[in-house]
Amino acid sequence: MITSVTAPEESPFLRACRRQSVPHTPVWFMRQAGRSLPEYRAARKRKTMLAACTSADLITEITLQPLRRYHVDAAIFFSDIVVPLKAVGLDVDIKAGVGPVFGRPFRGEGDVARMRDLDPTDVPYVTKAIGSLVAELGATPLIGFAGGPFTLASYLVEGGPSKNQERTKALMYGQPKLWHALLSKLTDITISFLRVQVAAGASAVQLFDSWAGTLSPDDYRAAVFPHSKRVFDALAETGVPRIHFGVGTGELLGLMGDAGADVVGVDWRVSLDEAARRVDIGKALQGNLDPAVLLTPWEVVERRARDVLARGRTAEGHIFNLGHGVLPETDPDVLARLTDYVHEESARGPA
Amino acid sequence: MITSVTAPEESPFLRACRRQSVPHTPVWFMRQAGRSLPEYRAARKRKTMLAACTSADLITEITLQPLRRYHVDAAIFFSDIVVPLKAVGLDVDIKAGVGPVFGRPFRGEGDVARMRDLDPTDVPYVTKAIGSLVAELGATPLIGFAGGPFTLASYLVEGGPSKNQERTKALMYGQPKLWHALLSKLTDITISFLRVQVAAGASAVQLFDSWAGTLSPDDYRAAVFPHSKRVFDALAETGVPRIHFGVGTGELLGLMGDAGADVVGVDWRVSLDEAARRVDIGKALQGNLDPAVLLTPWEVVERRARDVLARGRTAEGHIFNLGHGVLPETDPDVLARLTDYVHEESARGPA
Repeated sequence: MITSVTAPEESPFLRACRRQSVPHTPVWFMRQAGRSLPEYRAARKRKTMLAACTSADLITEITLQPLRRYHVDAAIFFSDIVVPLKAVGLDVDIKAGVGPVFGRPFRGEGDVARMRDLDPTDVPYVTKAIGSLVAELGATPLIGFAGGPFTLASYLVEGGPSKNQERTKALMYGQPKLWHALLSKLTDITISFLRVQVAAGASAVQLFDSWAGTLSPDDYRAAVFPHSKRVFDALAETGVPRIHFGVGTGELLGLMGDAGADVVGVDWRVSLDEAARRVDIGKALQGNLDPAVLLTPWEVVERRARDVLARGRTAEGHIFNLGHGVLPETDPDVLARLTDYVHEESARGPA
Repeated sequence: MITSVTAPEESPFLRACRRQSVPHTPVWFMRQAGRSLPEYRAARKRKTMLAACTSADLITEITLQPLRRYHVDAAIFFSDIVVPLKAVGLDVDIKAGVGPVFGRPFRGEGDVARMRDLDPTDVPYVTKAIGSLVAELGATPLIGFAGGPFTLASYLVEGGPSKNQERTKALMYGQPKLWHALLSKLTDITISFLRVQVAAGASAVQLFDSWAGTLSPDDYRAAVFPHSKRVFDALAETGVPRIHFGVGTGELLGLMGDAGADVVGVDWRVSLDEAARRVDIGKALQGNLDPAVLLTPWEVVERRARDVLARGRTAEGHIFNLGHGVLPETDPDVLARLTDYVHEESARGPA
């Protein structure tokens, strides 16, 4: 089930990231390793999320699980956006059914001063897991993973998941100096965390700035863009393709590309042909089937996947994905069938 | 504090809705009556949300509370989007800290068949409260209130608040016939509920399709637009201005106007000058200060409110509001100061 042609470099996934010709449109799914898989739920039994994310064996096992079921074109490093924050000593836990919760939310300058950069020795389980994964995956590329600066700041400032991100935005709007100091620290940590992954063998990276879509373009440009750009610039020297994704970011797609991404992830709210008009030339697109479509009869899944492929042809490169993560109630057999359908349909070319 | 010039017809609020000249930009705040006010919390003590929404005395008291504090240009009828569903016999409760919860979520055709239209006698407390309010408010207009068809369907199908609305969207994508049957019933109820309010004296209505922003324009056009349009068309004969609002609806602003709104509500993600380009001619705009701005120092509030006013001048008519509801932690004194600032600044005209 794991393809054995040549090296990851020549895989359809990395070729599409680089806007080169591909034999078929590559496919992977955000949260392809996760609660939709019974083997994931079994592996996680008696293990907290943070325990799973800091065990090289579990990271390796969970990352590989979807590859045993689906002919997907890439694996994604199993982690959580707060893992690097935990690794530098912040008091964070991931509560089942809630999400990341900080024992001591961010409250001011003193907290910035106390934050330190991440060192590779803080995350030995990452280096070890990626080493095993790369050996096991052969020609299938592994995508590295980190949370974007705004999203990390949001969890840290709110103390946990938040509907309106009001404390975060109040800090951002009201205390720009402190905001930029906080984001600089988070950016350092993010760069270090992604560099560890690339050094260990990740072939691409995705920055998940999941909640950036709550900002207007002007605020994003002033408060987030410079930090995200620094992440992408720092990764440029590694040569690996850089993917940039957030939910509800239709207004920000151009900026998220300009921040230095090679691939811009798009949710289902904006069609890929429209997204292609919004991003600058020289970018591939990733997306964008609504995950809820997978809960409908197969004819509907197929029709909508075909539409995503057709619109994706207007982009300079297209990686098929969902518009957000796989929903826990998704039937894995539908994902398996969808992967094969995308491969076959795209190999046939436009009707 | 309640203005006593002539009739609501000549109020700045209704004039702005009709894109007529105004002495100052009118202001009201979504959720101006709500948890940010200590007198609201006192009035709600020992009363559930549904009890408050079905008591003419409490509706009247709570609707008037913000008018005693702020020089806002309109009152908004205190209610909840599920009140008309409760009134036609659906088993729904509003749980504190959670939101609307249905004892028996929507599951299929039988549930459509069982739904009936709303009769004015189902909501005597609405007619009574609006009668008292209109008498009390004098020249200050009262805005009627209803949830939009998609948002109502979302609560009914999910059984409560939902992050991803996956069951709702699976129904919408996968069973369009059943979806349209459900939305037709909800549309009937919504029309009847708004007609009761206008008959009792409401001077304008706002349709809150809060979650419509989770849909792509194509899906919105096919699955929601015809129903929202039927609501607005049915209200046309009453002659009252019709406001249409949803969160994160930047991609949908044109369609939400085309559905028949006289005023399109805009959240903070899209600036009013950009929104003016997206809606068709002949529409006023409402919005769009980020509610989180109210948690920052006054200089920031003032600067951002001035920017909203400046951009709002590009619209054919502008009603100042927040981009979503007042956050519970908002200081009422800031809202009072903001109301006066908007009046003074807009009366002075462009710099």
